[in-house]
Amino acid sequence: MRIEILNIGTEILLGEVVNTHAGWIAKRIFPLGLRVARQVTVPDGPEIRGAVIETWGSADVVVVTGGLGPTTDDLTREVVAELLGRRLVRNEEVLEAIRERMAVRGFALLERMERQAMVPEGAEVLPNANGTAPGLYVPAVELPSHATPHFFLLPGPPRELQPMFTNYVMPFLERLAGGLERRDCRTYRVVGMGESAVEELIGLELVARGGIEVGYCARSNEVDFRLIGPVNSLDEVEPLVVARLGRHLVSMDGSELEERVVRSLAERGATVATAESCTGGLLASRITDVPGASDVMQRGFVTYSNAAKSELLGVDAGLLATHGAVSAEVARAMAEGVRDRAAATYGVSITGIAGPGGGTPEKPVGLVFIAVAGPDGKTACEKALYPSDRATFKRFASQRALDLLRLELAACG
Amino acid sequence: MRIEILNIGTEILLGEVVNTHAGWIAKRIFPLGLRVARQVTVPDGPEIRGAVIETWGSADVVVVTGGLGPTTDDLTREVVAELLGRRLVRNEEVLEAIRERMAVRGFALLERMERQAMVPEGAEVLPNANGTAPGLYVPAVELPSHATPHFFLLPGPPRELQPMFTNYVMPFLERLAGGLERRDCRTYRVVGMGESAVEELIGLELVARGGIEVGYCARSNEVDFRLIGPVNSLDEVEPLVVARLGRHLVSMDGSELEERVVRSLAERGATVATAESCTGGLLASRITDVPGASDVMQRGFVTYSNAAKSELLGVDAGLLATHGAVSAEVARAMAEGVRDRAAATYGVSITGIAGPGGGTPEKPVGLVFIAVAGPDGKTACEKALYPSDRATFKRFASQRALDLLRLELAACG
Repeated sequence: MRIEILNIGTEILLGEVVNTHAGWIAKRIFPLGLRVARQVTVPDGPEIRGAVIETWGSADVVVVTGGLGPTTDDLTREVVAELLGRRLVRNEEVLEAIRERMAVRGFALLERMERQAMVPEGAEVLPNANGTAPGLYVPAVELPSHATPHFFLLPGPPRELQPMFTNYVMPFLERLAGGLERRDCRTYRVVGMGESAVEELIGLELVARGGIEVGYCARSNEVDFRLIGPVNSLDEVEPLVVARLGRHLVSMDGSELEERVVRSLAERGATVATAESCTGGLLASRITDVPGASDVMQRGFVTYSNAAKSELLGVDAGLLATHGAVSAEVARAMAEGVRDRAAATYGVSITGIAGPGGGTPEKPVGLVFIAVAGPDGKTACEKALYPSDRATFKRFASQRALDLLRLELAACG
Repeated sequence: MRIEILNIGTEILLGEVVNTHAGWIAKRIFPLGLRVARQVTVPDGPEIRGAVIETWGSADVVVVTGGLGPTTDDLTREVVAELLGRRLVRNEEVLEAIRERMAVRGFALLERMERQAMVPEGAEVLPNANGTAPGLYVPAVELPSHATPHFFLLPGPPRELQPMFTNYVMPFLERLAGGLERRDCRTYRVVGMGESAVEELIGLELVARGGIEVGYCARSNEVDFRLIGPVNSLDEVEPLVVARLGRHLVSMDGSELEERVVRSLAERGATVATAESCTGGLLASRITDVPGASDVMQRGFVTYSNAAKSELLGVDAGLLATHGAVSAEVARAMAEGVRDRAAATYGVSITGIAGPGGGTPEKPVGLVFIAVAGPDGKTACEKALYPSDRATFKRFASQRALDLLRLELAACG
């Protein structure tokens, strides 16, 4: 069964509003075994015609969002009725509901609002608890020349659309999808490995098995490896996926690296303190994005200058002079210093060159050293190079630091 | 001239990723007098074919995003080449660039990555500074049966797509749009005032004048007030807009509040140090997002626990016991303490309750105190309430702190 979404809205195509409807609807219908086959956005106005016609013959169900308002640029209702050859009839019940809604707010019913009470013949009204424009369901029909899909016309504002979709569109789709095989979607979050490597390691093998759809979504220093298929098949391959991804597997429930780290710390009753130079607080901020972070992190330091590194973290001035602030030696000293001074179980440090200025041939923009000092007296240290814009560099470096901490935690059992 | 966007991505249609490309591109091309006529999303895979064919005859320029990666689900390059009857030829320069990029990160070139070096005959390579897959420009041609649009194939990740669009697609569109009437778009970034208030203050008056299109985009604790119109008209109303917005106007060039603050500090040769409790480093991280931030900020502290506030910032234990950590008194002491200990011109502190836990009837989740200690011996302090999810709370509180610092800097002349 093919479901298409047609979003009407000039503001979306001007970039003023981000289209979140398609994703919201997609997530709701997936558990029914349904997917969105295609999503189209056109501006308010006459372009709606062509977009509606395009769905004939390809779609079984079309969800149209927006263009049901009272102003002259809202044409969805009229265009759909005209194309399907239905007369628009004024629905007195709807009109009364609009009048009441206005009265509650102390407004009179303006003439233009009456347009919202016009209903195509044969269509069903979907009440709107959060706005004036009702939704409309126009059932599929066999016309002499072609079949038309089922049309659901829904208002654009999310707080109007969402309950209407849940209350009226979902039950319809559930009936329609009754006989479909339900497929599960599992996402494995992977760090420290590119998408090509993930495909090399497992993807091709799973594709060859058939019955499972494989997908990849690469972000800053992490990849979401996605499998869609029948629950049985997914259960069967999961042990393989988990074993192959090994220490690169961060989560299987979509949770973020920082959530995983905070959870691991909390489970062990351990704490962490951060000492950041080039990432300037992003590492601390990501950790403290996680609810409950205050149980595992009480202190963090942003130490840009050498003086700050010495005074606040106890980094030896000689070390700074000999190796420079961006060095493995200083990263280690920062991690050990912050662990010690904050009396934390783990100390994590980042020192590097975010750019755009400050690079040299030996120490180019993007160079970063990351260290984790642990309770066993050992300090892990890694060097990396992320030549990039400042925000991306900070994201990559903090990601690497979180991952190093995650691995140290895992190694401690 | 008709520009269409074709987004390729199963993850978009599964609702896992929100499609921000269309809006981003729309905003860039608007000043050229161009708008996006239509936007379509299809999943990775064979559906791309139909979507590409659909654009023939309707579009002049098609921007395709996504599906250029190395994995088997990435088919954009192959489908477009096939439909246009172009052979794919391996480009050695591109291959070398990919090899180098991998080498920098210590990875070998996997065979599958070579797909990313395949270029349709007659196409132009658009270098990718931030990823392996280059973009491709396939010029329009008159085929025997029909004309094809200009195709720009761009990678999906925003940090790869955006610079590529700016550097290669924009200049092309600028040439193409040479004869169109240009309307200017000016954005006034406003803090400390909602969009309704902005409309009340100026918007309605400007709408009544005609010739200027007025728009609002509200975000976390800031509003972009947008005017679109001929340059003359905009020049004429600008003094009015600036005067009415007054101290609420943060920037007129789209720059962020943190950029404005860092610039102000640098201009004065002043420095800042941060002391954060509930925002856990976000304030420091936002300041250090700005290039050159290391000149104005050498130190920051994340002090969750009372002990950290006392030991690192010198907050009196009696003060904490009497008023609690979330209080105006402690916020002031933190700001003054961090200013003093870091020997900075300004000290900024934030202490509050991010939630979800930790609220009480007297001090509910969302309560926050913000203080700025300045060189004149005075400390400004504000109380605010942002009951919200954790990330939003952190964003609002850091926004308010940056704005308080901005106003203190402005007051010092």
